[in-house]
Amino acid sequence: MRPASYFPFLEWGRTYDRRALVSDGLAAVIVTIMLIPQSLAYAMLAGLPPVMGLYASILPLVAYAMFGTSRTLAVGPVAVVSLLTATAAGAVADPGSAEYITAAITLAVLSGVILLVMGLLRLGFVTNLLSHPVISGFITASGILIAASQLRHILGVDAGGHTLVEIVTALARAIPDINLPTLLIGAATTAFLFWARSKLKPTLVRLGLGEGTAALLARTGPVLAVVVSILSVVLFDLGARGVATVGEVPQGLPPLSLPPLDPQLWSTLLPAAFLISIIGFVESVSVAQTLAAKRRQSIRPDQELIGLGMSNLAAAFSGGYPVTGGFARSVVNFDAGAETPAAGAYTAIGIALASLFLTPLLRELPVAVLAATIIVAVLSLVDLKTLRRTWTYSRFDFAAMAGTIVVTLAVGVELGIMTGVGLSLLLHLWKSSRPHIAEIGQVPGTRHFRNIRRHDVACAEHVLSLRIDESLWFGNARAVEDVIQQGIAARPDVRHLVLDFAAVNSVDASALESLELIGHRLSDQGVAMHLSEVKGPVMDRLARSAFLDHLTGQVYLSHHEAMSALAPEVTETADRSVFTPIDCSRPFPERQTSR
Amino acid sequence: MRPASYFPFLEWGRTYDRRALVSDGLAAVIVTIMLIPQSLAYAMLAGLPPVMGLYASILPLVAYAMFGTSRTLAVGPVAVVSLLTATAAGAVADPGSAEYITAAITLAVLSGVILLVMGLLRLGFVTNLLSHPVISGFITASGILIAASQLRHILGVDAGGHTLVEIVTALARAIPDINLPTLLIGAATTAFLFWARSKLKPTLVRLGLGEGTAALLARTGPVLAVVVSILSVVLFDLGARGVATVGEVPQGLPPLSLPPLDPQLWSTLLPAAFLISIIGFVESVSVAQTLAAKRRQSIRPDQELIGLGMSNLAAAFSGGYPVTGGFARSVVNFDAGAETPAAGAYTAIGIALASLFLTPLLRELPVAVLAATIIVAVLSLVDLKTLRRTWTYSRFDFAAMAGTIVVTLAVGVELGIMTGVGLSLLLHLWKSSRPHIAEIGQVPGTRHFRNIRRHDVACAEHVLSLRIDESLWFGNARAVEDVIQQGIAARPDVRHLVLDFAAVNSVDASALESLELIGHRLSDQGVAMHLSEVKGPVMDRLARSAFLDHLTGQVYLSHHEAMSALAPEVTETADRSVFTPIDCSRPFPERQTSR
Repeated sequence: MRPASYFPFLEWGRTYDRRALVSDGLAAVIVTIMLIPQSLAYAMLAGLPPVMGLYASILPLVAYAMFGTSRTLAVGPVAVVSLLTATAAGAVADPGSAEYITAAITLAVLSGVILLVMGLLRLGFVTNLLSHPVISGFITASGILIAASQLRHILGVDAGGHTLVEIVTALARAIPDINLPTLLIGAATTAFLFWARSKLKPTLVRLGLGEGTAALLARTGPVLAVVVSILSVVLFDLGARGVATVGEVPQGLPPLSLPPLDPQLWSTLLPAAFLISIIGFVESVSVAQTLAAKRRQSIRPDQELIGLGMSNLAAAFSGGYPVTGGFARSVVNFDAGAETPAAGAYTAIGIALASLFLTPLLRELPVAVLAATIIVAVLSLVDLKTLRRTWTYSRFDFAAMAGTIVVTLAVGVELGIMTGVGLSLLLHLWKSSRPHIAEIGQVPGTRHFRNIRRHDVACAEHVLSLRIDESLWFGNARAVEDVIQQGIAARPDVRHLVLDFAAVNSVDASALESLELIGHRLSDQGVAMHLSEVKGPVMDRLARSAFLDHLTGQVYLSHHEAMSALAPEVTETADRSVFTPIDCSRPFPERQTSR
Repeated sequence: MRPASYFPFLEWGRTYDRRALVSDGLAAVIVTIMLIPQSLAYAMLAGLPPVMGLYASILPLVAYAMFGTSRTLAVGPVAVVSLLTATAAGAVADPGSAEYITAAITLAVLSGVILLVMGLLRLGFVTNLLSHPVISGFITASGILIAASQLRHILGVDAGGHTLVEIVTALARAIPDINLPTLLIGAATTAFLFWARSKLKPTLVRLGLGEGTAALLARTGPVLAVVVSILSVVLFDLGARGVATVGEVPQGLPPLSLPPLDPQLWSTLLPAAFLISIIGFVESVSVAQTLAAKRRQSIRPDQELIGLGMSNLAAAFSGGYPVTGGFARSVVNFDAGAETPAAGAYTAIGIALASLFLTPLLRELPVAVLAATIIVAVLSLVDLKTLRRTWTYSRFDFAAMAGTIVVTLAVGVELGIMTGVGLSLLLHLWKSSRPHIAEIGQVPGTRHFRNIRRHDVACAEHVLSLRIDESLWFGNARAVEDVIQQGIAARPDVRHLVLDFAAVNSVDASALESLELIGHRLSDQGVAMHLSEVKGPVMDRLARSAFLDHLTGQVYLSHHEAMSALAPEVTETADRSVFTPIDCSRPFPERQTSR
């Protein structure tokens, strides 16, 4: 890595011109308009004062513009990370307390440090622990949980809870306390936002607007709802009728300050911060990669860790809370024509101006409208169709996904994602600990060898030919031992074992020891072990050990060569004949599905 | 599973005859003689009254004889499990206290339950978490730690400790307190046992004994040491000179009693019990498998879990502590001619007789002799040569092994083994998260395609051919995305991507989604994605998803077929010519080592 590669803005900054400035500026205006209600809403979801959402949308964007590699990713508060923040901060302090805010800021520092360290150590691969079904299940369950938790704001009641059952029970109990004006505003806004998401654009097009302009204007639905609702509250004095509003929002730029340094708190919040970092990073990178590909650009995941790490540190030093790249706003940024990360910096200017001049107007904004914004945004993340698709494709992946959803909804987000990771790793381990091993025979008239269960092939009575369809490592070394042992025990007449290594891409030290042990045991039984079709790099490595010296048999280049040497009577017939007279009557006990 | 398969003795019991009875009986006599000093010594290593070692060598052997599948495995207290028991029990109570004994018995119950449940659920694959270098490193480090911890008994001083540094420091400080008679007995016994291990057999052969008889008699070294040392203590009244002896050993059969049921203690000891179960099982199964193979028999690992589970439960109900199959005594049992697990039951009778009649004789047995027995036994487990061999073969495996040894010695056994498991899994994950992907071209004059970095091959300017040398799963799905993305970004003239799937043995749901995403992104860039050489089972699975409907390109049976369709001008020349005129000048940025 050249040092300059840690500062991607040095590269795109060199060729920055007026045209890019105009494109980026326009995109920034549109993202700013979208981001104002979103950042207030997500701060509320995190249990924090709305202004912290604005603070988290200023300096973090500047930091990402300097250190991020995606040209179009829009960083800021997002739904899932806000929920995780609420869960983690809620475990150490009461929402609304000063300690709660300190915890949220501490989570931002920790996430920043974790992401930065992972980036510098190039540990981006750790995110591979999260399989797609687990992420998808987690986001779906989080979306349901978030939407359910916001219903209380729509109904104007007080009904909290951490699990779906708790939330639903509390809501049911609170039905008598419903505040009708709040419900009216909340339901109307929700309905409008749902309508705007799918119908506003076609309507605008029908009204004569261009396709592009209509698409961008359609994104301003939430801002429209904000403006109309503030006006209604002021005009009809709804505050007096029990409609909860955002209240006083401090005016001005975010206060720059050192984040709290409390070792006890740091160590308590570390696991949660790790979770926030990983999930935020995975969400962000997948958006960034999709958008980069559309313009045939690429991103560097390890540098993305650094970019997001700096963003979170910036959030921590300016009174914000954990941030990451958001899906919806990045797409808007991309569609609006952003060309470089500078667009993010301009968006930061926009939000800063809003903090300076617009906050007094937000005082009368109904909380129900923010809740409606959140509900509409997160329900678009809920994707139950994938559940069915995954079921059809793979029961294992389905089990991991369903486990994640159930535990997230029934117990909580942190245990939910951990269950998913644990389950998917365990199932993967289980799967690859039982590799597919097939007995193979020669397809008559060719020099190919195929599974005797799938094809009519020729075999030799005293030679067992096994093809191992997996790289050999400690996870499956013992299973291979077992299978070969059982196969040989079932065939007392066998004198030669030939292992076809065509699909073996690597052999680790455990597997090497297993192979040596197998060879040793076989020689005790008077059976010679041979290998065929060993790949170059595997052979290079075997040659570095004593394995080949102890091998009782030979290493053959091709399986046909091995069989010609060990059972010439079979290959001579099979090479010529299209029909084989030799019956493979005692098939090797095959593992898993037949291939 | 037929119900009868849970009771393996139903099978071998049917054909049990007089000849087997004689063989098993003879083997049992020899194992009994060997097991008496060993079981006393290991109980002492575990910090328990010596008689618990005897108790752990009676009913557990009968239980294994009924439920185990190995014909020759000898079960009982072993060194590493005794050390783990000492560590776990020592964390909740003081050695020598009644609570300490309760903890050890509780560990046996928990291990029994864990093993039994794992066996019934067929979870034996969990032991695949332990790679050979990690096990080898752990056993070596435990051996060093155990030997060091026993030195205090040889010196006759009081010097405990949990880490190597603590033990060595304590020993150094205790040098002035050395008891000379104890040191004399301890050093002499250690020297004799070392000599007996390698030289006693040849000496006996030279004295005219048969090879087999000499080998078996040579194993009685420890018993000889026990007898001679007891006589010395009695004759020279060494007890009065400060030589510590075993003291009163209760006479009689083990008391049958319900193991303690303390939910608090159970949950505290659960992790340690899990560790004891897994390590004990791995050690036992590898011995059982090696011995079974020598006679072309086989064992069933899942039933072994049940066998060892029942053994541990038997230990818990009869005042013993955790047991497993031991290496040295199983080899003796095998060499002595044991034919069925009944030999274990006869050994149990032998130990029961010893508990009834021999315990008064053990009162004057010097502790130093037991310590010498332990030191000689565990030092044979220390294997530093493997460290060098592993270094040569694979740096990753070496790192896992060295990490296990260092942490075990410096911090403790439990953290040591967990470090090893974590490190080896992380390194494996890291390795398989970066699969080898090579650009391939046609070898002129053949229809084979090979890595363009290793061979002179023919390529097409507008077709990128990549061979993925790994099954696709969530651990490497994202890496494959990155590599393809970077490859395509570096080659703006490419219009077709062909992925050679010959080495892809499976594709999980995450990888499927990645492939769809790659295809989607490529089509945004005007590049069609094709597959070639897809294996049958992979194709079956892909056909169950919508992947093939969305695929922008084709699936070709062979890579040659793909290239003939997409770049006929290249294949036509390459098929004929032995030298290629086409230069693969811009190689794809290859991952890892070149193949």
